[in-house]
Amino acid sequence: MATEATNGAAGEVPPVTFTALKPQVFVESSKANDAVAFYKAAFGAEEVNRVTHPKRKADQDLPLLLSAEIKLGSSTILISDLADDSTVKSTGLVFCLETEDIEGAVEKAVKAGGEGQMTEGEGAWLGGRVGKVKDPYGVVWLICTPPAAAKRSGDVEA
Amino acid sequence: MATEATNGAAGEVPPVTFTALKPQVFVESSKANDAVAFYKAAFGAEEVNRVTHPKRKADQDLPLLLSAEIKLGSSTILISDLADDSTVKSTGLVFCLETEDIEGAVEKAVKAGGEGQMTEGEGAWLGGRVGKVKDPYGVVWLICTPPAAAKRSGDVEA
Repeated sequence: MATEATNGAAGEVPPVTFTALKPQVFVESSKANDAVAFYKAAFGAEEVNRVTHPKRKADQDLPLLLSAEIKLGSSTILISDLADDSTVKSTGLVFCLETEDIEGAVEKAVKAGGEGQMTEGEGAWLGGRVGKVKDPYGVVWLICTPPAAAKRSGDVEA
Repeated sequence: MATEATNGAAGEVPPVTFTALKPQVFVESSKANDAVAFYKAAFGAEEVNRVTHPKRKADQDLPLLLSAEIKLGSSTILISDLADDSTVKSTGLVFCLETEDIEGAVEKAVKAGGEGQMTEGEGAWLGGRVGKVKDPYGVVWLICTPPAAAKRSGDVEA
């Protein structure tokens, strides 16, 4: 189990409140739009929000879909194009955990045995800093600011 | 995009109602128990249900954890040991979609371009038949009976 140096510390970390857990599906670049269409057709999903990247490689390219938020029953999942420079190299599926206390959440997860880091840019559709925790079982958790506290819709710089 | 033979049919499939969407994390066999402990320590998850397999390979082995249901905020995720004979060969993360109409849900997803199949046994912690849909983007969706309509707790035969 890979752990950080801080892991052995005995100090208690205060509790962290999470406001939402959203699975995020990363697909090969520019297929996210098709994926959203599939989830609508296959499972009756409803698109509730979409954030595209303002830059595209060429005029004929689809804009990079940073994140489409779809509702499936009472749950929310995110569908995203995997950016060329993304460091989310994982299973294709990660969990987005939303909290106002990103640093506290990462610290607590690292103490528990996860590998944590802070990143800029990645997950920028939610605005600002994002924590990333890879747990001992290979699952990636992105620790994000809730959309209410971030830019909710429209283009953002990645 | 891999499709089933039924895909070309023009008939409309009636809507399917899903009662829940639960991400399910499959981990290497007998590590699910540790994973649940990690999610409690790291994210304050709360265990609400646990179904273990009655058989174990040897007396000193941990029983196979078919599924532990944990709450994280208002969301539910499932943690499971990957059985030796499991056909869930995927990313390690799949979505459990709960509905009373498993066949209808699979039919609709196949018409939309997914690869669908019915399986017995897999997901047996929920009791009975389970639909499995691999979507064109590599994500596996298990279509399951809601727990209220299936055996909720305790040991089950897999």
